This record gives sequence, structure tokens and C-alpha cells, in this order.
Amino acid sequence: MLAIMTSKTELLSNYVSGQWISGKGAGTALRDPVLGTELVRVDASGLDLAAAFAFARHKGGAALRALTYAQRAALLGAAVKVLQANRDSYYEISTANSGTVKNDTAVDVDGGIYTLGTYAKMGESLGDRHFMPEGEPARLAKDPLFQSQHMLTPTRGLALFINAFNFPSWGLWEKAAPALLSGVPVIVKPATTTAWLTQRMVQDVVDAGIFPAGAISVICGSSAGLMDQLEAFDVVSFTGSAETAAIIRSHPAVTKKSVRVNIEADSVNSALLMPNEAAGSDAIDLLVKEVAREMTVKSGQKCTAIRRIFVPEICYDAVAQALSARLTKTTVGNPRNETVRMGAVVNQEQLNSVRDGLAYLKAQTSVLHDGNTHALIDADASKACCVGPTLLGTRDAAGSDAADRIHNTEVFGPVATLVPYRNNDLNHALQLIRRGEGSLVASVYSSDPVALAQVVPELSDSHGRVHVISPDVAALQTGHGNVMPQSLHGGPGRAGGGEELGGLRALNFYHRRSAIQASTAVLSQLQ
Amino acid sequence: MLAIMTSKTELLSNYVSGQWISGKGAGTALRDPVLGTELVRVDASGLDLAAAFAFARHKGGAALRALTYAQRAALLGAAVKVLQANRDSYYEISTANSGTVKNDTAVDVDGGIYTLGTYAKMGESLGDRHFMPEGEPARLAKDPLFQSQHMLTPTRGLALFINAFNFPSWGLWEKAAPALLSGVPVIVKPATTTAWLTQRMVQDVVDAGIFPAGAISVICGSSAGLMDQLEAFDVVSFTGSAETAAIIRSHPAVTKKSVRVNIEADSVNSALLMPNEAAGSDAIDLLVKEVAREMTVKSGQKCTAIRRIFVPEICYDAVAQALSARLTKTTVGNPRNETVRMGAVVNQEQLNSVRDGLAYLKAQTSVLHDGNTHALIDADASKACCVGPTLLGTRDAAGSDAADRIHNTEVFGPVATLVPYRNNDLNHALQLIRRGEGSLVASVYSSDPVALAQVVPELSDSHGRVHVISPDVAALQTGHGNVMPQSLHGGPGRAGGGEELGGLRALNFYHRRSAIQASTAVLSQLQ
Repeated sequence: MLAIMTSKTELLSNYVSGQWISGKGAGTALRDPVLGTELVRVDASGLDLAAAFAFARHKGGAALRALTYAQRAALLGAAVKVLQANRDSYYEISTANSGTVKNDTAVDVDGGIYTLGTYAKMGESLGDRHFMPEGEPARLAKDPLFQSQHMLTPTRGLALFINAFNFPSWGLWEKAAPALLSGVPVIVKPATTTAWLTQRMVQDVVDAGIFPAGAISVICGSSAGLMDQLEAFDVVSFTGSAETAAIIRSHPAVTKKSVRVNIEADSVNSALLMPNEAAGSDAIDLLVKEVAREMTVKSGQKCTAIRRIFVPEICYDAVAQALSARLTKTTVGNPRNETVRMGAVVNQEQLNSVRDGLAYLKAQTSVLHDGNTHALIDADASKACCVGPTLLGTRDAAGSDAADRIHNTEVFGPVATLVPYRNNDLNHALQLIRRGEGSLVASVYSSDPVALAQVVPELSDSHGRVHVISPDVAALQTGHGNVMPQSLHGGPGRAGGGEELGGLRALNFYHRRSAIQASTAVLSQLQ
Repeated sequence: MLAIMTSKTELLSNYVSGQWISGKGAGTALRDPVLGTELVRVDASGLDLAAAFAFARHKGGAALRALTYAQRAALLGAAVKVLQANRDSYYEISTANSGTVKNDTAVDVDGGIYTLGTYAKMGESLGDRHFMPEGEPARLAKDPLFQSQHMLTPTRGLALFINAFNFPSWGLWEKAAPALLSGVPVIVKPATTTAWLTQRMVQDVVDAGIFPAGAISVICGSSAGLMDQLEAFDVVSFTGSAETAAIIRSHPAVTKKSVRVNIEADSVNSALLMPNEAAGSDAIDLLVKEVAREMTVKSGQKCTAIRRIFVPEICYDAVAQALSARLTKTTVGNPRNETVRMGAVVNQEQLNSVRDGLAYLKAQTSVLHDGNTHALIDADASKACCVGPTLLGTRDAAGSDAADRIHNTEVFGPVATLVPYRNNDLNHALQLIRRGEGSLVASVYSSDPVALAQVVPELSDSHGRVHVISPDVAALQTGHGNVMPQSLHGGPGRAGGGEELGGLRALNFYHRRSAIQASTAVLSQLQ
């Protein structure tokens, strides 16, 4: 049974220095965004952070580094089993605390476990070694006896994760899997609003005794003072707002000690219908399906969700109608009701933020489908943080040029804007897309593989991922917004400039690259 | 003839927006550090920086990106020829403005041209393409029809270089070569003190009409306002002090727009004699030779120079004597006198800084060889910025532990400290080395290839390069302090956390990585 049945809610413990420790304050309440009830409380005040970080860095780090990649991969595999065994309780927590329907919970919970499992498998291939050679040796002179060999060595520090509210499971494991596989201990600070699921998953893994002491810590509550603990060989990974990102980047640990930072911030992602698609073409159908799904999954609270939909002017009305028809069918309300397709946004603050953002965008757009027309199912509109999907549009190509707000504003909810570009003018579409100033994902739709391949390098300079949807992969494509562990996750500019996942590329962040210049006799011993 | 023969010195022009433009102010004088005479003046006031950056970014960027890697490599090759043809004038400028003897000038001038030439050659291998696939495609499902392929695309921005005084040639070309090869236009702001050589080299290349308009710009004088011009897809590379590095990292362009930064700052590099080397062993001889050379090349003004020399206590006296004997032979003074082996430091400010740094270190060390014993040759001690090489020592292992200043202070001149560690206690040496908190280079000396290979991963986590010297490579090894374009240049922590060179790895900084998820039909067109 969930804690909501008790009169005074549980205060979740923090796990630091190999111990479960409660904060000294009364705590901040976590709530059910549909029912409004208090679920649990979190608090991190009074923790000895210096000791916690030293314990992770020295005790956890040394123990992890003593293992090989293959041994650490086996620990990730063991953690996957523990998480799978407790999956039902994670679904329960997610429904209560994130207000998500089952399909949306799966993106977070099962997505996190899948990512962890993928790194467990990939890690096996790294074998019984403690560092990784990179590339081939290069001669430094005509005589091949003295050469340069690059290698990657795990950093002798810890990884601090300051995570976002929308993925308490996936956000934990997509970062922790490559860190732990690299031999780097982890301290995770989940977003307070949804910290419960992160805390529970860490608790289950800790209780199972899988990782050495200090390998994984969780601090629930305020992030105050965490950055102050960082030292030169630590790294910090942040997912969240551009404002907080700027504060992290300006911290002396970063500016003076060169603490490595990975940031994922705002992103105004695009979907692009290529020119010359006839009405009723497969590509248009695929675009409409994908956009409707992306707008509504997790109530649009995905950093990868489609925010701008670029179509030739000639297709504007047809796409607007087809999208509106799909969105109309989206049932909104209490995720416990099986007829509901879209649950809540995470809390009242986010609901207000979505409403404010909508008002801001509406000043430069028309409403093509109004989220307010969706009556809530099984939910009290005065309490539930639910909002229907809204499609906006800039009417014509001139409107798309003029509407600066749609290109630089991420409304973090079920909201997107249909943006027509001049017919047959792909460059116009690309110019408009670039006004996003760097995003996580662009998806592109056409039946012509040559045209698709030609547009890829025009998108790849400003997007961490380009997702190409053609009719031949309609049933296979993994989704615009789904982050696959095999592919890079991150984006330049506004998106924060970070790089996560991408298969084994993710390990680079947790390793130091070094050139070893030595005799072939010495280099051969390093292989 | 040099400008020093004229009564009023030349005001060097800046090259921006495809034009040579003089600053509007009187300018800052560049001086001969041996004679004290004024050579030329530089000034950047009154430039239209917004126009200059836009011209480089849009005009230069588009023209460079229209070329393939192989075509751009050919341009680098053409620039090498122009620079080689003008080599004598660079030597003249370097002697006058940097106060360097011929061998030291070669490190900068010929080192720069060699690095540029190496990238010209490597670039040919990239062929006639406009972007680079990275790695193999990865399946995203059991059906192989939909896969993920990573690729690197040149960033659609410019590269701003804010360079250090000690390498006006090499510092320009080691950064510009990979940027231009990547298709990214360059704006270089050389350190004012030695800006002349950078400006002249750019002028020669511009006059030869090799690169398209906007591909390369040079701004000589104050760096005020340069960072303010940066946009999301630009990058900035800085070599210099930790204080300025922190200012650059805190700039809104970096913290808010995710402008990519590469920093090379302070570094307290190490040389390590492995335990159990008998007196008079080859390894000891090699260490002594290497240290003496590193302390004196370019008067110790190399970020890669050896600052700390770790030897077992039992070897302390022998190494101190052998090193002092070598240093005694170092003739110091006017680089125009052929008997002089070591010229000046770059200016009075640096001379004062070296003297201050020496006083600071002496409080915790003994003087083993005193630079003040070197009488200046052919130079007026009241004017010339010359200083003899000084070897300090911490006497015993306890002294090495206690002397915190030697581990965190980079004295940028011909100064190093001999640091004894407990006999047979390699871990003690490694602990002491790590107190440098991240350096560019460690070199290690032994005759035992197994022991050398074992120590490498203990150094590679905190050094961008590990240089291994064993007797079999005595004649081949490329030098502790020489930066080879094949090897990574940079280091974690105090060293700034940057990565440069490393062969084609250098191109990563100027490219954006992106995962392309598409059908095999589309991906095959990208190959």
C-alpha cells in the first residue's frame, strides 16, 4: 500500500556515506498531481556533504576501479534483475507521483531498465581490463620504435547528477549506467517533485547489496551546497532549465577547477515534412501520427518532444485538420481510469507554466486545436494538474518568419505549433529550423531516400539526433522522442551542448583521454 | 630590415571583414626583451567587431564549408609553402620580440609549420566529403532495416582563439590547422606582447590569397568585447592564465549559449624516476638530460616544461649534482650571440613574476643551483629580461610532503624543484604527483618496460600525455615538452581540462556529433 493512506507521510531517507540518513528538517511534500494528496516528504538538511562526497570519491571510487569493465557490467546486469523484480511498485509510485498513464510510465521505468541492461551487455564486450586503448598507435618518427598510443582511463572522482522531474527512473539510469560501468561512483540528486521513484530504485539496489559501498548515493531535497563539494576530477551532469544550467556553469568548481559539465537544457525540437509530398501521401500520414503521439506522450513533458512542425504552405490546412482530428480523440484525466490516454503534468507550477507559455505563443499564432475543449475524465479540474493538447499554427510562411516566440520558447507540455514554409523552398524550412539555435532532435518525413539523405547534413550540425521517417521503416522506427541508448542524446546551443548515451561513447565523459608516448615494448604491455 | 630602425614604430594592422584596418588608438608598444627597444605597436580599438565576426561566420564559414576536407587540406599545404618561404623573417621577429635563441625559435616557428603540414597531410585522407561518418551503424531493433549511424558535421560558427605569448607561431597553427581543415573560420587574438609574429604570418598567408575571404582574421591588441560577439555555434579556445580562463568560462556566451570552450591553463608537470635505479644507470642519465633541457628551452616558458622532478630519496644528491653540473654550463644572455644557449623571458612583467615565484617557492625549499650565478653574456642586466636557471629541492621525503607550494605553483621560467620520495615507495611518488591536480605531461624514466607499463595508468588519469623514456628510445624519443600533433595536448583539472591535437581527434572540437536514425537505404547514401 502507498504511503498516502497514512495520516503523516513518510520522510524519505537519503543514502550517503554508506548509510540511510534522514534530513533534519520537516521536509518538502511530494504530491499526487491528479488527486492533490500528499504522498511522501523529502529533506536533505543537516547532511555532512563533505563526508558524503569524500566517501563516494575515495571508498566508492577505489572499489569500483578495482573491478574490470566486465565485472562492473555484471553488476549492472544484477541491478537490472532487482529493478525488474520491483517493477510493479515503480509503476504505482509513478502513477501517484507523476500522474502518468501506464504507457507513459513505461517510457520512464522500462526505458530506464532497458538502458541499464543495454550498458550491462555492451560492458561485457570491454572485457577484463581497467582502462581502454583508443585508436591505433601513431609513429612519431620514421623509426617505428617510439610511438603514441591514446588511452582512456576512468577519472578518479565522482559523478554528481542533478536530474529533471520528468524522468526519475530513466534520467537516473541513463546517466548512472555509463558512470558505474566506467568505474566512477555516482551521487544522484533527483528533482524534488518526483524524487520518490529515484529514491526507491536506489534503495532496492542498495538493499540488494550489488554495488560496493560508496558506489551510489542519493540525496533528496535541496541541491544547496552540492556543487561546492566538487573537486578537479569530479564531473557533474545536469538536466533541467537553462537558468539553472547557467548557474552550474558559473560555479567556481567549473570555472576554476575545470570540473567537467554535461548540460541538457531547453530544446525547441522540429518535425519537417519535405517539399513535394502530395496530399494523402504516406509521409504526411507518418508525420501526423508521430506528431500527435509526441505531443501527448508524458503530457508533452519530454525534452525531445516535437514543438515545431514544418510543412509546405500547401499542406498546412490538411495537416492541421488531420492532427486536430487525432488530438480530439486524446482522452485526458485520471491515469487510473483505463479510458484515459493522457494523465497530468507533474504539478501546479508546471500547469501554470504551460498556461503562461500558451498565452505567450498565442499572441503570435492561431489556435488550430484547443486543449480546453477536452473535458477531464475521472478528475476534479479544480485540483488535477491536467491540460488537454493544444495545436497552434502560424497561418502562412510570412507568419512563420514573424513569430519569433515559437522558435525560442519551449512550452513543456502538450503543445506544438504548425509552421508553414514556402512551397518547394526547403532552405526556408531549414532557416526557420535553425532559429531554434540548437535542439536535441529533428525528425524528417519523405518517401524519397535521396532527398532525405541530402537534408541530413543540413540538420546534423544543429541537432544531436536526426530521426528519418520513410514509409519503409514505418513499423520499425523507434520514435522521434524515444531516446535509444545506441544513439547520442544531447544537442548544441540552446539544448545545452551536452552529449549522453551514443553507446560506448557515453563512457568518454567519465574517462580521461591521454596520449602515451613510449617504446613499442612498453606500449605492447598496455594492449 | 626590422622596424626598430625607424624613429616611430609601425602600428600593425588588424585583418577583419576581409580588410586590413588600423586601430584608432596610439597603440601598445611591443619591445625587445633583451635590448629594451620598441619594435612595433598594436591596437584594436574602434574595430566593428560585430561586422567582423558576422563576416567570418557567414562569408568565411560558407566558403570553407563549400570545400571538401581534401580541398581544405590542400589549402593548408599551400599555407605551409608560404610560411616556409618567409621563415627567415619569422626568425628575425622572434629573436627581436621573444628574445629567443635559434633553437628556441625553431620550437615555435618550425613547430608551427610542421603541425600545419601534418594536418595538411592527415586531411588528404579525409577525401572529397563535407562531413564524417563516425563508427559503424548500430541496429535499433532485431530487423536491421532501421539503424543508427553517428556522424560529425562542421559547426556553422567561427573559432575564436585567445592565445598565449610564448608560442605566437605554434599557438596559432596548432589551433588554426584543425579548425580550417574542419571548415570553420578562425579569428585569432594573439597575446599583445608577442603579437607581431602571429600578425606577420597571417599577413603572409592573406597576401598569398590562399584561403577564401573571412576564413582567417587577426585582431592585435585588447581582447575587450571579443567574447561578447560569440553565438551558439561558435567555439573559443584559450591558452593562458587560470584567472582569465575562469573569466572566459563565466561569460554568458558560455554559460547561456553553450559556446564550446577549450582551455589550457596552468600545469605543474612532473618527471618521475622509477624506484630501484642504481646510481649511474641509463635512466638517471636520461632524466638528467631531459630535465636540464626542459628547464632551459624557451627559458622555461613552455606550459609543458618539467616543474617537479620526483626521484627516490637515495638518488637525491646524485641527481642534484648531475643536474647542477649541466645547468652551470647554460650560457644566458643576448640570443644574437652564438655562444648563448638561453635568451630572455618575454618581458619585464614575466621576469618579475619569475622572481616572485622563486621567492615564494624558496620559502619551502633549498636552492640546489642558483640562477643568479649566471653572468649575462652580451646583455645589460639592468635592461635585459634574462634570468639563469634555478633548481630547487625539498631535501627529503618529509619535505616533499610538507612543501605544498611546489605542487600548486607554476613558475613560468627556468625553474624546477627536485622532489625526493620514499625509497621503493612508488605510491608516495604518485600521491605527490597527484597533488598537481591535473597536468599536461608526466615523463617517466626506467629501464624496465613492465614497470613502466604498470605505472602508465596511474598517471594517465591526471595527465593529458604520459611520456615514457627508456634507454632503447633514448635517441628517438621526441622530448617531454615537445607537443607532437599526433598526440593529445591538454590536461585535466588545473591544466584547464582541454583537449587539442591528437591527430584527427582535434577536429572533434570543430564538429557537432549527431546520431542519424534512418533506414539502411538513407544511411547508405550518407557513406
